Amino acid sequence: MTIRFELLATAGAARRGRLHTDRGTVETPAFMPVGTAGTVKGLAPEEVRATGAEMVLANAFHLWVRPGDELVQRLGGLHAFMGWSGPILTDSGGYQVFSLKAEAKVTEEGVTFRTPFDGQYRTLTPEGSLAIQEALGVDVAMAFDECLEWPATRERTIESTARTTRWLLRGLAARKEPRRTALFGIVQGGFHDDLRVAHARELRALDLDGYAIGGLSVGEPPDELFRMVALTTPVLPSDRIRYLMGVGYPHDLVEAVVRGVDLFDCVLPTRSARFGTLFTSLGKVAIKHARYREDGAPLDPACSCYTCRGFSRAYLRHLFVSNEALSPRLLTLHNLTFYEGLMARIRGAIEQGAEALERVREEARLSVLPLDDGDP
Amino acid sequence: MTIRFELLATAGAARRGRLHTDRGTVETPAFMPVGTAGTVKGLAPEEVRATGAEMVLANAFHLWVRPGDELVQRLGGLHAFMGWSGPILTDSGGYQVFSLKAEAKVTEEGVTFRTPFDGQYRTLTPEGSLAIQEALGVDVAMAFDECLEWPATRERTIESTARTTRWLLRGLAARKEPRRTALFGIVQGGFHDDLRVAHARELRALDLDGYAIGGLSVGEPPDELFRMVALTTPVLPSDRIRYLMGVGYPHDLVEAVVRGVDLFDCVLPTRSARFGTLFTSLGKVAIKHARYREDGAPLDPACSCYTCRGFSRAYLRHLFVSNEALSPRLLTLHNLTFYEGLMARIRGAIEQGAEALERVREEARLSVLPLDDGDP
Repeated sequence: MTIRFELLATAGAARRGRLHTDRGTVETPAFMPVGTAGTVKGLAPEEVRATGAEMVLANAFHLWVRPGDELVQRLGGLHAFMGWSGPILTDSGGYQVFSLKAEAKVTEEGVTFRTPFDGQYRTLTPEGSLAIQEALGVDVAMAFDECLEWPATRERTIESTARTTRWLLRGLAARKEPRRTALFGIVQGGFHDDLRVAHARELRALDLDGYAIGGLSVGEPPDELFRMVALTTPVLPSDRIRYLMGVGYPHDLVEAVVRGVDLFDCVLPTRSARFGTLFTSLGKVAIKHARYREDGAPLDPACSCYTCRGFSRAYLRHLFVSNEALSPRLLTLHNLTFYEGLMARIRGAIEQGAEALERVREEARLSVLPLDDGDP
Repeated sequence: MTIRFELLATAGAARRGRLHTDRGTVETPAFMPVGTAGTVKGLAPEEVRATGAEMVLANAFHLWVRPGDELVQRLGGLHAFMGWSGPILTDSGGYQVFSLKAEAKVTEEGVTFRTPFDGQYRTLTPEGSLAIQEALGVDVAMAFDECLEWPATRERTIESTARTTRWLLRGLAARKEPRRTALFGIVQGGFHDDLRVAHARELRALDLDGYAIGGLSVGEPPDELFRMVALTTPVLPSDRIRYLMGVGYPHDLVEAVVRGVDLFDCVLPTRSARFGTLFTSLGKVAIKHARYREDGAPLDPACSCYTCRGFSRAYLRHLFVSNEALSPRLLTLHNLTFYEGLMARIRGAIEQGAEALERVREEARLSVLPLDDGDP
């Protein structure tokens, strides 16, 4: 096995663990910053590391289209290319196909679609997606799956989930030897309880390197998401990492952790930062708000990131309204530091027990309550 | 006197010196990165310092309009606001008025114009410009002058230059006591040799903190610019710093140094970087060029900046063509490091003598010759 998950402690369903990889250890529960095109937007790799992040996510689909996985491979792999020496996980492209749905045609073979960048028709298959991820040389590849829309009929869900399983088996069969890249399967099954549990059982039987919970956060009510997570995690093997894809707000992370999730990624902290929305220990800040115009205080007095150490809210607001390049960078640095700090507190709380975890839950809820009345 | 210029060595007309300020010493000849709105676009202050820069330029006009000089003052001054502890020089707004010419009306009192950001009519006077710069708390203020267009008639040049002198006298009379901000005068006189020399003599008699050479790089042939510089510097006092505003390419800096200039600012290294044009020891690089697609070499093998230490041309090209925020940042870091490195070599060469300076002149000429056939 190319990676190994070690379970250190639990508090209820919450798990404190460690993901061991050839490129270093990731303390879990962990949050992976998103670096779609081989860069966490605006940040240098050393800054990403300074936020506390130990593992990042990149996107196989995007890197395949531009600059090309083979080019990256010839240049020594994605780690060298982007200057990140820690573990990297790549999205398989399944979700991108979902978001391009109108332009994509799904067959048993794979998905054919028109690429947004160059308008060319391309086909992505389970074998192709895995080969791309192996060529990139990442530590964890995601299986190529079909991400279902919400709502989907029982019939459509059965058909799609069965195809996702067949695609996973094709991916497993296509793995290059010796195995340098771990492969995570993705539990689908839509929002039909029995189908989701059944799919988790099927995947469990395959003894995979890790398990993702997919097909969530696609427009369903938030309660449904957590209900699906709570249904799925008990079925998964306790000695494998569990990854909830594309979630979410600070409080969502805690809600998922208390339901047994170990690993996260989401564009929220980075994208929100670019739009001037910051998560802080005092609440959610819309930095363009007039109340920060002469505010000499740091963005978050409880934060020790470079942004909060060196600059006032007034200066950050000035950079934001002036559309200065330093703005998204300083704000992204803060939001990621906030997320990674939250994960560290979650990890500490699990070691201390359920009560401590409840306090972090409250803290996370507070961080998304508006501190002002403005939302960009 | 709030600043003091120390002359250490000469090689022909070239001068090796030191500008002593309350906020640190600047080794000259020196290049100031441009931080118009209180930020060198995309770079953190510590990175600006790491390029070798000891002094930066900001723009009184821009900061007056947004976020307002009084706001900056209430927040502890520009140094604290932008997180730059070294010396800062501000442009008076004279050049911005020049570039807004169509929208500006010049009277003896000052200039009334429509502000680009908010469309409001505002009036800038010599006293007002100085008060703004003093409120910002900068180390060096520039006198408010009229920057003449090229070509300008003798009559118009006489009239305008006389007004610039009257404005300078009004600025000198309006200085706040105790003096914390040095005030540089700006030699105008257009491209009429006798008028320029006469204006330099007039300003010399005023015993100013420093002398800028203005009204150049406004569309005239390059030879004319250097002819004016060579005419002006011998007239200026040898114990005061000489600042050539808004110039230029690497070889322009050397050409001006050998004609006796000590201080520079220019948007070229930062703006060019954002457009993907890089100055290197091997020549000028247009990073979007296809020849760099799989180029695993650093941008400039002779450069030790963060960009050249950590990333390949292929990755920098990928970031540039993908319009990623890390691109302007890494490229700006390189170009500024190149400029500051060039200034360091110029300083070393002056100490060694004319021959060494000639070698740096050749090096600077090489850095702007295209390494590829593409220019973005």
